[in-house]
Amino acid sequence: MNKSLQDQIQFLVEIDKLKTIERRTRIIHGERRENDAEHSWHLAMMALVLQSHANKDVDILKVIKMLLVHDLVEIDAGDTFAYDTVGYTDKYDREIKAAHRLFGMLPEAQAEELLNLWLEFEAKETDEAQFASSLDRLQPLIHNYQNEGDTWQKYNITSEQVLNRNREIANASDTLWTYAQQLIQHSVDQGILTKS
Amino acid sequence: MNKSLQDQIQFLVEIDKLKTIERRTRIIHGERRENDAEHSWHLAMMALVLQSHANKDVDILKVIKMLLVHDLVEIDAGDTFAYDTVGYTDKYDREIKAAHRLFGMLPEAQAEELLNLWLEFEAKETDEAQFASSLDRLQPLIHNYQNEGDTWQKYNITSEQVLNRNREIANASDTLWTYAQQLIQHSVDQGILTKS
Repeated sequence: MNKSLQDQIQFLVEIDKLKTIERRTRIIHGERRENDAEHSWHLAMMALVLQSHANKDVDILKVIKMLLVHDLVEIDAGDTFAYDTVGYTDKYDREIKAAHRLFGMLPEAQAEELLNLWLEFEAKETDEAQFASSLDRLQPLIHNYQNEGDTWQKYNITSEQVLNRNREIANASDTLWTYAQQLIQHSVDQGILTKS
Repeated sequence: MNKSLQDQIQFLVEIDKLKTIERRTRIIHGERRENDAEHSWHLAMMALVLQSHANKDVDILKVIKMLLVHDLVEIDAGDTFAYDTVGYTDKYDREIKAAHRLFGMLPEAQAEELLNLWLEFEAKETDEAQFASSLDRLQPLIHNYQNEGDTWQKYNITSEQVLNRNREIANASDTLWTYAQQLIQHSVDQGILTKS
């Protein structure tokens, strides 16, 4: 077997671990917590279905690639809960180390491409990164809304925290930000999210 | 909220069910069975990483889209085990009905696009469909190899059945078919797959 293929297969076997990394959010149609692999699939589907709502024309292949790889670093660094301010202090350091180890398993040009995609996603500067990141915000919001408040209730999260966390959606899509605000307001009205 | 967005969100909530559809194959780094959502993510990653091994130049966005949606029909139709010859007799009928219901939840143009992608995948005639389908064959082969024979042993599958099932990989990639044959041979040599 040629060396490139061997390295690629080892990488593909290694990233199977993403299926074992649990998020705080529950799946909608079941009681268990969601894992990063199925979350990444769901986000890629959201990109496919919601792309026309982006404020700018985005390169959808790039958006989808970013979403497919965006959480791989959590194989080493673990999932940091959205409202965990302590965990966030060293999140980037832990994740960049993981990115170099994981993407570094691939042939050099491919390693560089995927590392750069992940860095672009994290920097949230390009239209593609902003749209991808906005979906990564919106998805757990939809899950919590569908699951009667779930992690909001469990961790005493207020509507102000949720609004602040999700405000960046506005950078990528006015339509999705309007929708997100409606979901948050409905959640407060229904008593599944505490108004701050 | 505009009607299109409302329909799209309902679709995205509905397809969360893919996370509850279990396959026969186990994940590599754990004991539980894999679900269709994480399987679809893994295949999209394989497409991204292995695209240079396709015999023909493929439109990789199309391949990834196909892989993201290819198993959605199993939300209604369930997973049909690869070696279940009885289940295969009405598989297509069950799945086409599911495809119309699920994709039909979306705005018309989008419903048509995704339905056509799924039909193209199923027909296995275009280069993109053949490459996508070859990855859908190769992935459980890798899992079974990594998991000491797993479903091969559990359901008394022979190397001849595995070779026949995977032979279509050759249509899409000589390199991956050579690799698949090596995996099968190693599996026989290690005693985790019965030679027929």
